[in-house]
Amino acid sequence: MEAVKKGVYAALTTPFVRETLALDKFRENVERYNRSGLAGYVVLGSTGEAVFLDDAESERLVAEARSAAAPGRAVIAGASRESARHTVSLINRLAGLGADAALVKPPHYYKSRMTREALKSFFERVAGEARIPVFIYNIPQNTGVAVEPALAVELSRHPNIAGLKDSSGALANLAETLPAAAPGFLYLIGAGSVFLPGLMMGAAGGILAMAAAVPDLCVRLHQLFLDNKLKEAKELQLALVPFNTALTQTLGVPAIKHALDILGYFGGRPRSPLLPLDAAGRRQVRELLGRLGLPG
Amino acid sequence: MEAVKKGVYAALTTPFVRETLALDKFRENVERYNRSGLAGYVVLGSTGEAVFLDDAESERLVAEARSAAAPGRAVIAGASRESARHTVSLINRLAGLGADAALVKPPHYYKSRMTREALKSFFERVAGEARIPVFIYNIPQNTGVAVEPALAVELSRHPNIAGLKDSSGALANLAETLPAAAPGFLYLIGAGSVFLPGLMMGAAGGILAMAAAVPDLCVRLHQLFLDNKLKEAKELQLALVPFNTALTQTLGVPAIKHALDILGYFGGRPRSPLLPLDAAGRRQVRELLGRLGLPG
Amino acid sequence: MEAVKKGVYAALTTPFVRETLALDKFRENVERYNRSGLAGYVVLGSTGEAVFLDDAESERLVAEARSAAAPGRAVIAGASRESARHTVSLINRLAGLGADAALVKPPHYYKSRMTREALKSFFERVAGEARIPVFIYNIPQNTGVAVEPALAVELSRHPNIAGLKDSSGALANLAETLPAAAPGFLYLIGAGSVFLPGLMMGAAGGILAMAAAVPDLCVRLHQLFLDNKLKEAKELQLALVPFNTALTQTLGVPAIKHALDILGYFGGRPRSPLLPLDAAGRRQVRELLGRLGLPG
Amino acid sequence: MEAVKKGVYAALTTPFVRETLALDKFRENVERYNRSGLAGYVVLGSTGEAVFLDDAESERLVAEARSAAAPGRAVIAGASRESARHTVSLINRLAGLGADAALVKPPHYYKSRMTREALKSFFERVAGEARIPVFIYNIPQNTGVAVEPALAVELSRHPNIAGLKDSSGALANLAETLPAAAPGFLYLIGAGSVFLPGLMMGAAGGILAMAAAVPDLCVRLHQLFLDNKLKEAKELQLALVPFNTALTQTLGVPAIKHALDILGYFGGRPRSPLLPLDAAGRRQVRELLGRLGLPG
Repeated sequence: MEAVKKGVYAALTTPFVRETLALDKFRENVERYNRSGLAGYVVLGSTGEAVFLDDAESERLVAEARSAAAPGRAVIAGASRESARHTVSLINRLAGLGADAALVKPPHYYKSRMTREALKSFFERVAGEARIPVFIYNIPQNTGVAVEPALAVELSRHPNIAGLKDSSGALANLAETLPAAAPGFLYLIGAGSVFLPGLMMGAAGGILAMAAAVPDLCVRLHQLFLDNKLKEAKELQLALVPFNTALTQTLGVPAIKHALDILGYFGGRPRSPLLPLDAAGRRQVRELLGRLGLPG
Repeated sequence: MEAVKKGVYAALTTPFVRETLALDKFRENVERYNRSGLAGYVVLGSTGEAVFLDDAESERLVAEARSAAAPGRAVIAGASRESARHTVSLINRLAGLGADAALVKPPHYYKSRMTREALKSFFERVAGEARIPVFIYNIPQNTGVAVEPALAVELSRHPNIAGLKDSSGALANLAETLPAAAPGFLYLIGAGSVFLPGLMMGAAGGILAMAAAVPDLCVRLHQLFLDNKLKEAKELQLALVPFNTALTQTLGVPAIKHALDILGYFGGRPRSPLLPLDAAGRRQVRELLGRLGLPG
Repeated sequence: MEAVKKGVYAALTTPFVRETLALDKFRENVERYNRSGLAGYVVLGSTGEAVFLDDAESERLVAEARSAAAPGRAVIAGASRESARHTVSLINRLAGLGADAALVKPPHYYKSRMTREALKSFFERVAGEARIPVFIYNIPQNTGVAVEPALAVELSRHPNIAGLKDSSGALANLAETLPAAAPGFLYLIGAGSVFLPGLMMGAAGGILAMAAAVPDLCVRLHQLFLDNKLKEAKELQLALVPFNTALTQTLGVPAIKHALDILGYFGGRPRSPLLPLDAAGRRQVRELLGRLGLPG
Repeated sequence: MEAVKKGVYAALTTPFVRETLALDKFRENVERYNRSGLAGYVVLGSTGEAVFLDDAESERLVAEARSAAAPGRAVIAGASRESARHTVSLINRLAGLGADAALVKPPHYYKSRMTREALKSFFERVAGEARIPVFIYNIPQNTGVAVEPALAVELSRHPNIAGLKDSSGALANLAETLPAAAPGFLYLIGAGSVFLPGLMMGAAGGILAMAAAVPDLCVRLHQLFLDNKLKEAKELQLALVPFNTALTQTLGVPAIKHALDILGYFGGRPRSPLLPLDAAGRRQVRELLGRLGLPG
């Protein structure tokens, strides 16, 4: 069991071969990530097409991640279901397979009923029954439900809620949450374009989609921050932004997978309904890698 | 196997006792619905808290629905997963358990990638591999992804896409879709407040949450329309609106369940994260039933 | 002074020649509209590019409308400003120039502060100080602020609030508002695709953008409804939908103006930032007119 | 004529006495601001209730601002109208009255027509005809129309577009814009909660609503950044966040005005439809000022 500590976490992709889960390809990727300075891995996240996997596939992926991850690398597992009951059940099965922590989105199907009271009750119950620490996952652009800072502050006091991943890109959330949150609450940046400013404002690290493609650059950015080399850090952050925007907004998961293919990892195709990248998208990924000095 | 025909379908609730699926209560409800003039039942819909059930529970519920439904009543099963692969797999398992048709939402997690092309490809694949007819389920207020009329028209030409349930409340969708859709395409109204005007514009019927609580009133509204008694129909439609608004917007599923409890069905509590109705909500449901002349 | 009565109102365009207000062209259009069965005209609406006119231009346009309108045709003037003070001032100047009623949008710049209480206070003050009757104008797709039915019901009791134009397309609003509103409250449909179903549910008429281009067809649709020829009415309504969608959604005001040019009215170009219709848009308008049997 | 240079700009409120523009109160406020280290003033912004003022009031306010501002303090005037024509006209009148630059929002009424092409054409025309430099004003939470980074980059090349104020709070915008923008393009942060991280990423300064209430703290935050005292800067930034959130989100302009009243400026009431702060809001403002060590 590894503790979730400060640092850079890569949000891993899930490899498929003809839409079938390819655990061997996944293991090869992780073994290569093990040679980087990443603090750990997030599996079953938005980058990992978690919503496309069923329970059995989810379990096999987490077991493989645990087995492939080098010692000292935490494995954080996305574990979101709409009901508290099935969320808890999934978390605890994944815990039994080696997950060190769970990343849980707010339920969001019944949007108009997801009041602050309902979300509070949900997260407290899930955290109370989970056997591993829970991280809240705020990604309103996908869920349509925001975890407001005031709620995050309240939930930070729960002994089994360890932190929050914020993919909203709104650093005001961090600024409203961190000073009031329980000591030790880990605020992790999920939007690669604001990783450095997030660190500057007190974030403990990041869970980054682009770290699946360029882990060394992400780790270096973090290290430049730790070394107080802010001018170089700023330059690297700005250089990474166009790449990050393509991977997480304009082109999405198919572009991350294509970048992996180019860089010698296994990327492959996403599951339907995600479409594979078209020729223009592939060209763009190649060009963006080139601008980062990588074999484009 | 029952054909999905014109008429009123009740969107059924899923009974829980202490958050455990209570199939016996479900059967009792269906047996009572069998005495109404409903054309059939939708299970695993938004009213049915489908997003809170796992695959095994979903299968047991559909099997029970099939077994409990009187002859001639179609059983339409919600069968939405984010991936085409698991959607098809679920549909075909539910088909084997007696579902007559499947109701499928557009995938919506990767909102920005759900282009018209991606949605078209998804629905065509699902319909092509499904063993029972597929109905498209448009409910953008919950999914954040709209099925545009132009896409619905294209999909209507697929031999295994039988129709569309529109819960958006925007009758312009119907007006833009129906005249251009393939002959026989069944347009079902999912927003109870516009059931009658939808029928007037050519809808084949409705899948109504309020029909779980007041099936006879909904069937009567449909019959008044068929009998061309439009003045009475309009009055009944308008009388049903405040009740429908409470059940589907302001109070939601917990209110439907509470209404069922009052009316002698089994309602019970929703699963977490939905909160049970508070005292004010319970009072409101009772009062709205009273206004409809029902035992409030 | 003309009373606003039941019927079809055309939302008029504002003609420009090289971006300068062309009152002579406006008068020629109105004189031709006078030969139709329209109940009256709305000037300074969304179709009229009201947001592009300053106070002086607005006043000249209303004066010209009054002078050009045949006896018995009401002139309703859009009169929206963000502040109550300037809204009242504008309404009363337009009243002095002959406007029979004012159409007022909810203020919407400070969206998060436009609570029900703030909107209620705004509309009550405006109506209380206005010298002509006020119609509420609900068009949330443009303003981002919805006038909820419960608020409309409350406001309907104000002696100087005569009705509401609903361009949202959501007939549930009508169904929630009309039965509870004060007697005589005029509910006018602003979304041409649901004009007929709106009438069927109790609307008093419509304020329609497409009526600027095809007034006779809109008047005929209304008459078919009044004559209880619902089958023919439904067919005409459905036939009008694609044209209406192009004019109000996909192509917008520039398409209305282009249709006018084709049909022998003066259309002309919109003011910047609206762009003139491109070749594909022009072709589409011509084809849609052709489908309606008009000289395309 | 003052150049717009790097630094902190206060977004000024517009004083009213019984809803009438109170220029004497405005002058007294500015004279006190002159004793601070502010780089200049923004009048007719969102904080200034610009949407509630007519043209004549707008002109008098800018003239007064010019006359009251100490030498070296730039006066930036909000100058947004929906049409290019009236925007240009207003800008040039305000220029004649002493405005050093204009802050222009994208037109946003015809949301669906405000394509990138339409916005580009609008801003290029406005900038081309304006006699003073133009700043783009991105505030999608109020307008519903975002100025995308790619558009901002294109517009940055126009010789009379001097910069952009971004109130979205999304620093990814800055990171996507600045590295690609024309040299010298001034990126000004409009969201007080991310002022410091914005500076760290290359922003030239800020236009801050809270600077109307606490100019010295905002100037000090900027100075700490310039002096590379990042730890103290971070602490001050975090301390300012709850106050900023109340002023710009939860309570809005009425809270800014109430804070001014407490701090010895003239605040007063907003114009209708903004409601004055209720007792709970007033208590909250007082308490937040107390937490900043100010006479609460």
